Amino acid sequence: MSVSKRLEAASQFGTPAYFYDLDAIRTRIALLGDLFAGRFGVSYAIKANPNPALLEAIKPLLSTFDASSLGEVRRALAAGMPAARITFSGPAKRRAEITGAIDLGIGELVLENSRDARIASAHAVEKGVVQTVLVRINPKEVPRRFGASMAGTASQFGIDEECLEAELPFIQSLPGLKLVGFHIYSGSNCLHAEAIAENFEIFARIFRDAQKISGIAPTRLIFGSGFGVPYLPDEEGLDHEALPPLVNPIIDALKSEPAFKNANCNLELGRWIVGPNGWLLTQVVSEKQSRGKSIRMCDAGFNNHLAACGMMGSVLPRNWIFENLSNPAGETAVFTLVGPLCTSIDRLARDVHLPEVRIDDFLSIASSGAYGLTASPTQFISHPYPKEIVLRDGELFEATEPLRYHRYDQAETAG
Amino acid sequence: MSVSKRLEAASQFGTPAYFYDLDAIRTRIALLGDLFAGRFGVSYAIKANPNPALLEAIKPLLSTFDASSLGEVRRALAAGMPAARITFSGPAKRRAEITGAIDLGIGELVLENSRDARIASAHAVEKGVVQTVLVRINPKEVPRRFGASMAGTASQFGIDEECLEAELPFIQSLPGLKLVGFHIYSGSNCLHAEAIAENFEIFARIFRDAQKISGIAPTRLIFGSGFGVPYLPDEEGLDHEALPPLVNPIIDALKSEPAFKNANCNLELGRWIVGPNGWLLTQVVSEKQSRGKSIRMCDAGFNNHLAACGMMGSVLPRNWIFENLSNPAGETAVFTLVGPLCTSIDRLARDVHLPEVRIDDFLSIASSGAYGLTASPTQFISHPYPKEIVLRDGELFEATEPLRYHRYDQAETAG
Repeated sequence: MSVSKRLEAASQFGTPAYFYDLDAIRTRIALLGDLFAGRFGVSYAIKANPNPALLEAIKPLLSTFDASSLGEVRRALAAGMPAARITFSGPAKRRAEITGAIDLGIGELVLENSRDARIASAHAVEKGVVQTVLVRINPKEVPRRFGASMAGTASQFGIDEECLEAELPFIQSLPGLKLVGFHIYSGSNCLHAEAIAENFEIFARIFRDAQKISGIAPTRLIFGSGFGVPYLPDEEGLDHEALPPLVNPIIDALKSEPAFKNANCNLELGRWIVGPNGWLLTQVVSEKQSRGKSIRMCDAGFNNHLAACGMMGSVLPRNWIFENLSNPAGETAVFTLVGPLCTSIDRLARDVHLPEVRIDDFLSIASSGAYGLTASPTQFISHPYPKEIVLRDGELFEATEPLRYHRYDQAETAG
Repeated sequence: MSVSKRLEAASQFGTPAYFYDLDAIRTRIALLGDLFAGRFGVSYAIKANPNPALLEAIKPLLSTFDASSLGEVRRALAAGMPAARITFSGPAKRRAEITGAIDLGIGELVLENSRDARIASAHAVEKGVVQTVLVRINPKEVPRRFGASMAGTASQFGIDEECLEAELPFIQSLPGLKLVGFHIYSGSNCLHAEAIAENFEIFARIFRDAQKISGIAPTRLIFGSGFGVPYLPDEEGLDHEALPPLVNPIIDALKSEPAFKNANCNLELGRWIVGPNGWLLTQVVSEKQSRGKSIRMCDAGFNNHLAACGMMGSVLPRNWIFENLSNPAGETAVFTLVGPLCTSIDRLARDVHLPEVRIDDFLSIASSGAYGLTASPTQFISHPYPKEIVLRDGELFEATEPLRYHRYDQAETAG
């Protein structure tokens, strides 16, 4: 993506602003179909970025939306996705979320534990329906080189692999549920094709075990992809061209077995699709030379981008990929970039090398399409809410969402 | 504060909810007056907690509100504080914030650098007014044992102490400004009375230096208090009774000097006032035994309380002070508490000892009155927005703020 569109977006709409290249995002989803030659449908994890214009733009290219809250189920419906093509996972679904999703006719409820199952079955029976469900499984192992991992240790997610024999028969015994398949998401943000293939090999083994225990012929298998994106200047991206020769044989072997003949395989991903096609745009508001450092104060801080400030699970904050959109040919110097908040932890970059950064210059932070705006404390210190700008069919539009928090009544919030 | 009011609030209004004891907060502000026998007025830093019901309740007890954004200036006005009793500080004020604050008739604009000064003076001259200003100074040193420090190193805050001689004359030469005093806030969250007194001694020295350089007789001095609150079970609170014998002589000595005779001294604080009188209330939604751990999934996670999850500047996450409101007499066991988010970093507590935690139990997290709700990414994964409940004159009220983000037009966002 050229600098000019980002500069145009910042100048035209003002900052702070998130900028999403919907055209590139659609291309990237289409690429998945080509890469795996139709072996996988794509399930988009709304949590990565729930912007309504984005959901609407990508909906035609997906098999399903994966929602992680009832609020996200409603977002999927608002984007025009039929309820039957929404899956709903999440380790702590409130009772009202489970019953609400069934009432909305959700396609697949992903059960994370037997409590989910009991509540769902009782409600389905009461309504006189049978709810289609998947069971999420938490593996004993995840290969090294995943950025964040839920597997192998104690975890709130899914049914631990070693407990399947005890728990699957109970779930299958419940009259309101129909088990049609399994879901595994054991680690995220992996940049190594071999590790992803190794992980899928583990998934295939577990799917076979779960098939044997349950006796069903699964029609749906969800592969939590873990496809990562580079955040730091020296990181190499995932070589997606390397994936098919490693991954396709795993899927082909599985599908050649009679029990898996009708298994509809899905890649669940969010970050890999939207992350690299989003930027935070910020403007330099003020400057200060202080004790040997050239400090530039920007209009966006951790209130607008928690992850880029190293505050979302990072152990050591490191500089993300910054560009000076307004002065790309300026002489390079070293800057400290901070946000507008009255706290010393509001730091965007330390000692970052950039073309001279001047007051009023627009800067961008790359890899910001996923876990950006909605994962940030936008209310902190009552600064303006960031705009959201999209590039669609080559044109710029503002797509800032009117903030609508779902207000749940007492019954709905009860656990 | 007894468990029963918190339990009542959770049961009556539902969770997740922040609970603020406004009665105790008012008592705590009054305590400051007693402790220092009128030596200090109190300036409340809105950023700690901007809840409108809270601002309204404490306004009569304060000398000023300190705002850190134009949005916070508007919050102070909405709470009924006269513009003349609002101060506005912040290291990256957008141009429109400076001119907007002057247009609103703000009492004191706190200049953090000469750019603030130039913009403010030009606008005041254009309007035919003279804007009262303070200059924020960034000390060379801060005593050890402050939780977070802005002093001593390169910092975006204020004018570095060593630059006063170069910068004050310039600011004083600007025709639209009237310099009436100084502001220092060099470190926060200190639990040691001696360190706070040592810090105030540094302030007094710097105020004397700045007085000499500027030649003014200051009418206003703001002491960024740094009074801390304990967050962890084994932390001892600040012994505020120990403060007056250490601090009062510093103030009395300063005020005995002719140049400081009319100096109105103010303590700026936020955390110390509201922090200990707020709790996050959450309900247990689900449970899981996983690989030797007893996990309880709650309806609040880092989306509702970033700091308690160790994600707001902490190096090592440590368990805050949890209570099981529903089962205080239960048998103690060890639990892992997590939130509802689909990410392994959503962890409230590791191996915390609590009376048996059962599904539907209400838990509270203490020390949550400051930097709680507004410092958290409440939109993440579209979970319900937390309620805010206040205890006022012994009665419980819902005081959830209708979310109103200020939308700035293009002119207002321009740097």
